Amino acid sequence: MGEPLLVVVCGVPEQEEERIRAAAPDAEVVFAARTAEVADRLPDAHVVAGNLEAAGLAAAGRLRWVHSWAAGVDGALYPEMVASPVVLTSSKGNGAVPLAEHALMLMLMLDRDAPRWLRAQGSRSWDRHRHGELAGATCGIVGMGGAGTALARRAAAFDMRVLGLRRRPDQQVPEVDRMYGPGEVTDFVAESDFVVVTAALTAQSRGLLGDAAFRAMKPTAFYVCVSRGGIADDTALLTALQDGGIAGAGLDAHAVEPLPPDSPFWSLPNVIVTPHNGATTAQTQRRGVDIFVDNLTRFVAGEPLRNVVDKHAGY
Amino acid sequence: MGEPLLVVVCGVPEQEEERIRAAAPDAEVVFAARTAEVADRLPDAHVVAGNLEAAGLAAAGRLRWVHSWAAGVDGALYPEMVASPVVLTSSKGNGAVPLAEHALMLMLMLDRDAPRWLRAQGSRSWDRHRHGELAGATCGIVGMGGAGTALARRAAAFDMRVLGLRRRPDQQVPEVDRMYGPGEVTDFVAESDFVVVTAALTAQSRGLLGDAAFRAMKPTAFYVCVSRGGIADDTALLTALQDGGIAGAGLDAHAVEPLPPDSPFWSLPNVIVTPHNGATTAQTQRRGVDIFVDNLTRFVAGEPLRNVVDKHAGY
Repeated sequence: MGEPLLVVVCGVPEQEEERIRAAAPDAEVVFAARTAEVADRLPDAHVVAGNLEAAGLAAAGRLRWVHSWAAGVDGALYPEMVASPVVLTSSKGNGAVPLAEHALMLMLMLDRDAPRWLRAQGSRSWDRHRHGELAGATCGIVGMGGAGTALARRAAAFDMRVLGLRRRPDQQVPEVDRMYGPGEVTDFVAESDFVVVTAALTAQSRGLLGDAAFRAMKPTAFYVCVSRGGIADDTALLTALQDGGIAGAGLDAHAVEPLPPDSPFWSLPNVIVTPHNGATTAQTQRRGVDIFVDNLTRFVAGEPLRNVVDKHAGY
Repeated sequence: MGEPLLVVVCGVPEQEEERIRAAAPDAEVVFAARTAEVADRLPDAHVVAGNLEAAGLAAAGRLRWVHSWAAGVDGALYPEMVASPVVLTSSKGNGAVPLAEHALMLMLMLDRDAPRWLRAQGSRSWDRHRHGELAGATCGIVGMGGAGTALARRAAAFDMRVLGLRRRPDQQVPEVDRMYGPGEVTDFVAESDFVVVTAALTAQSRGLLGDAAFRAMKPTAFYVCVSRGGIADDTALLTALQDGGIAGAGLDAHAVEPLPPDSPFWSLPNVIVTPHNGATTAQTQRRGVDIFVDNLTRFVAGEPLRNVVDKHAGY
């Protein structure tokens, strides 16, 4: 059956190699930490799992399929990839659970002002303060993919009212009390005590939350982002945080990463910054490999792949 | 119908006074910040809501009912109160929801090492680390009152396996996979990735978690306490935290409060201390008044009261 399949897999831990090989027993499978280390094999590769930049894509004349370990593939969708006939699949869903957990941690820490407790602990100071409860508050979730739906279920168990905003608001989610469309952003944020961004960064979502949205938010409300910076306009967010337009923010994803040392977000007293670290778990990596192994089995069998990216929709 | 009822209510915000008066329209209702301020009225009082110490109880010869704003009444059960025929009711249930929220905040912060992120933020440092997920981990809850059951529901929504330990293990709770009795402490803690104390402090629960329990815990497990110190033996807990017997702890309730400045718990790197502050919300206070108002209505009508404390059981 023609030339043997060449599969280049970058960035997986050694203990995952065996099950990847087992998914394509007749293929040659090459493992490396980064695609740059196996540049000489790219011209012959049919499949690449990992980050493949434009130069690598140009060199890979036989390439048919690229798998990304990321759930959000905005970084992989450079113009050459969008224009290419190569199929791109994502690891969408791999981090849904830990991102929902991270969002709830940030929501609880903001609502209770946990940083104040940690500062008091540092000075051995018994400093009590009045704080809020999530129960009865409204959680507005932007994006209803894996992380958004996982968060909706948890927020509902916290007795929160759950609102959703998605591109196709007719697609309901059981725990979501009301679903809004992209044209209803200001109504959606005005109702929310927490606005939590879990969406992919696409041409549609970029800048979705601008000046009008932050002006429409309650001054007591918190903004949380666990998926991608750039969905909120940072200037509008910064103004709202500095002028009392909103109560605070928990930011795991940032428009520029790593967040530059001179970013004002680091030092605002009402902001918790985490370094795009919400889904950095062993389970996230394992679930990404699960998706690739399943897809490699399908690829060898000539069956349709899962998690195929619509390159124009951006996810 | 005899002498008018005298009700002394201490420590409620002014906006709650009207609905308390309305519950006993024919009574004289006296409001004060503390019982000490109305010592001259105690000899005539039939009802006191608030902290009543032994001297006040001795002075209150006509007293029939004391309501405590606390959910756990260990502090109100001094020997004279236990011996007295006066009925004691608690505000049990008032803080169940915020305590469950606080427990989950501490669990998430411990599992993800949130203090590390806050330290990194202080130095504008992009410092990522691998962390865990609550999903798939086992949450062992000590005490199945309001806070324990509220936590069980939330932990189940986090896809945790939920274990319970209660005095009467035959009383099931829907979200609890297995209920243990007090004689099974070591089996219970050995199965748990998080041991979370939500129980009242009673003669039975004091010292329930001693050396044997902390030795039986997984070295990767976390201990969390949101109800009362004294249920764990502090020496055993401290040893486990210092010697790697457990991974860390989140302590809102402490054996001595305020936690003394020289307590070693303040400075252990794997401990988060909060100042018995988990349920300090406006809603907790409101729910306590809800219970008192309901009971005052019942008292005036001669009906049985809710939340009557079994003075010998201790809750």
